[in-house]
Amino acid sequence: MIIDIHGHYTTEPQALHTFRDKQLAGLADSARKPGSTDLGISDETLVKSVEPQLKFQKERGGDLTIFSPRAGGMAHHVGTEAISREWTTICNDLIHRICTLLPDSFVGVGQLPQFPGVPPKNCIPELERIVNKLGFVGVNLNPDPSGGMWTDPPLIDKYWYPIYEKLCELDVPAMIHVSSSCNPNFHHTGAHYINGDTTAFMQLIQGNLFKDFPTLRFVIPHGGGAAPYHWGRYRGLAQDMKRPLLKDHLLKNVFFDTCVYHLPGIELLAKVIPVDNILFASEMVGAVKGIDPETGHHYDDTKRYVDLLRLGEKDREKIFEGNARRVYPRLDALLKKRKK
Amino acid sequence: MIIDIHGHYTTEPQALHTFRDKQLAGLADSARKPGSTDLGISDETLVKSVEPQLKFQKERGGDLTIFSPRAGGMAHHVGTEAISREWTTICNDLIHRICTLLPDSFVGVGQLPQFPGVPPKNCIPELERIVNKLGFVGVNLNPDPSGGMWTDPPLIDKYWYPIYEKLCELDVPAMIHVSSSCNPNFHHTGAHYINGDTTAFMQLIQGNLFKDFPTLRFVIPHGGGAAPYHWGRYRGLAQDMKRPLLKDHLLKNVFFDTCVYHLPGIELLAKVIPVDNILFASEMVGAVKGIDPETGHHYDDTKRYVDLLRLGEKDREKIFEGNARRVYPRLDALLKKRKK
Repeated sequence: MIIDIHGHYTTEPQALHTFRDKQLAGLADSARKPGSTDLGISDETLVKSVEPQLKFQKERGGDLTIFSPRAGGMAHHVGTEAISREWTTICNDLIHRICTLLPDSFVGVGQLPQFPGVPPKNCIPELERIVNKLGFVGVNLNPDPSGGMWTDPPLIDKYWYPIYEKLCELDVPAMIHVSSSCNPNFHHTGAHYINGDTTAFMQLIQGNLFKDFPTLRFVIPHGGGAAPYHWGRYRGLAQDMKRPLLKDHLLKNVFFDTCVYHLPGIELLAKVIPVDNILFASEMVGAVKGIDPETGHHYDDTKRYVDLLRLGEKDREKIFEGNARRVYPRLDALLKKRKK
Repeated sequence: MIIDIHGHYTTEPQALHTFRDKQLAGLADSARKPGSTDLGISDETLVKSVEPQLKFQKERGGDLTIFSPRAGGMAHHVGTEAISREWTTICNDLIHRICTLLPDSFVGVGQLPQFPGVPPKNCIPELERIVNKLGFVGVNLNPDPSGGMWTDPPLIDKYWYPIYEKLCELDVPAMIHVSSSCNPNFHHTGAHYINGDTTAFMQLIQGNLFKDFPTLRFVIPHGGGAAPYHWGRYRGLAQDMKRPLLKDHLLKNVFFDTCVYHLPGIELLAKVIPVDNILFASEMVGAVKGIDPETGHHYDDTKRYVDLLRLGEKDREKIFEGNARRVYPRLDALLKKRKK
C-alpha cells in the first residue's frame, strides 16, 4: 500500500475563495461579511474538485493521501483570532467531507486556529474536535503564525507545551508546516517553507523537548528543509552544544517526508536519514506543478525517485506504508478496521 | 594551489572584544566609550592569533585563505549606523594587517558598514577603501542587516542597486552572508545562516538582477543553503514562474562554496551544481569545531570530502583554484603578480 502523507487541498471550489474574500472584506466593512458559514458546496462539487489529485494518485500508483487544507491558505497572520477560528473550522470541515465521500483515497489532517501572539493552547478545542469528532489522524502546526515575521516563541518554549500535551494524549503527530509569507524577503514555497523546516529542526536540536514529551512526534516536511543536506553541520552543532547524538536526541520523535523534487535529493535523504524516519509524500498538487524537462515526468512525482532508490523491499515498504502507520497510529487503526 | 575562499577571523585578540564591549556600553553611558580606536594590538599578537587557522591550513593541505572579519561579529543590527561604521573600519583594518603580515596565507575580504533601514549606498566609501586602498578582493554583503528580522527589502530591489554598480565597477564579487541573529527563533549558525542562503537564492530566482548587472557575481556560502538539495524544487519553481533555466538565469553569476560538513552533502553538491560554479571553502575556524566520530576528522575539513569526489583533475583544479581566480579577478591579478 502506498500512503502519501502530505497532500493539501489546493483545488478548492471557487465558493471557498469567495467566502474568504468576503470574510476578510468584512474586517474593513462589516456590510461585506459573508451572510453564512454554509458555503453551499454540494458533495458532487467536492468530489469533482479533487479529481486532479485522484488522477495523479492513480497514475503514479498511490493508494491513500493524508489530506489537509491548503498550507498557504491557513494564513494565520491574517485578520483576527476569531477570523482564524472561523476559517479553520470551515477548511477542516471541507477536508472531513472529502474524506467521508472518498474514504479509500483520503484521510484527514487538520489545520489549527493559530494566531500570532495568541497562546497555542487556544487551539485545543479545535484539535480535540478534528481528532475525536472528524476522525483526523494528525494536524499541521505552524511554527510561525506571523507569516514570515517570526514573532512568536520557538517551538521548544513552554508557550507551546499545552498543545504538545494534547497531541500526546490524542496520540496524533504534528507536521511542522508554515503558511504563506507576508515578508517580501521570503518567497512562500521557495524560501519560507524550506526555512520553516530548517528553523524548526534547529530549534529541536537546541532544546530537550522530547525529554518532556517522549511520545510526541513531529514530521518535518519538504525532506526536512536543509537538514539532511547539512547533516554533518547539524551533527557537529549538536556535538558542540553537548547534545546527544541526533539519532538519540531527535530521531525517535522527528520524521522527514520525501517532498524533494529530484532524484539526487531523495538519494541524499535516504543515505543520511535512517529509513525508519522517512515517510513517503509528494505534496501534490502543490508548490511545483510542472514537468521536469530533464526527466519528462512531474517534478513532484516523488514516488519515481523512491522507486529508483536501491532499497530492500522491507525498507521500501517502511517508507511507503509502515512508517506512516507507526507515526500516525490512528491511521493504522483506521486501516486495520477496514482490514487493510 | 588550494584556495579556501571562506575563512573568518574568529580568533581575534581579546583587545578587539574589549573595544566592542566599550563601544556598545558607550551607547548607554557615554562615559564608557573607548578612548581611542587604536586597539594597541601588536603585529606579534596578530600573527599569534591566527596560528590556529594556519595550523589547520597546513595540516589539511590548504595554501591560501580568503579571510574576512567574523561573520557573526558584523552584527549590523546593533547600535547605530555610526557604530556599525566605526566597528567595520576597525575589523577591516585588522584583516588588512593580517594579510600584509602573512601575504602567502591570507587575502582580504571585507565587511560593510550596513545598518537596517539605511540605504546600502552609504557603504560605497568603505567598499572603495577596502578594495582600492586595502587591496581586498571581495566583500561580504549581509542580505538581512536587521539580524533575523528581515525588515529590509529583498536583494533584487533597486534599494541595493548602488552597491551592485560599485561591485561591478570594482570587479569584485560579494559573498551573501548574514550575521548574528537577534530573533530567538533563528539559531545563528544552525538556522539563520542557512536560511539566509536559501532566501537569497530564491530572491535571485524571482528577480532579473543579472539582466541589469551581467557582470555581478555572488557567492552563496554554506553550499548554497538548501538550494542544491532542493534543486528540482528550484528548477520547477523557476519554470512555473516562466523564468529561464537556472543555468541561464543565475549560474553565470551565482556560485556556491563547499562549506557542507559531510561527504554525502558535498557529493550532492557536485552532482547537481556545474563544476564551474563550485568554489572550495571550509569556513574554518567557524561554526562547527568538533571532530566527526563517524570519520575521525574535523567536520569542517571539507578538503577531504572534495578529495573523495570522483572528479577529473581538471575539474578538481577548478574547484580548488581556477574558479576562485575567475570569480575573484583581483585575487588572480595578485597571484599572477607574485608569479603564482
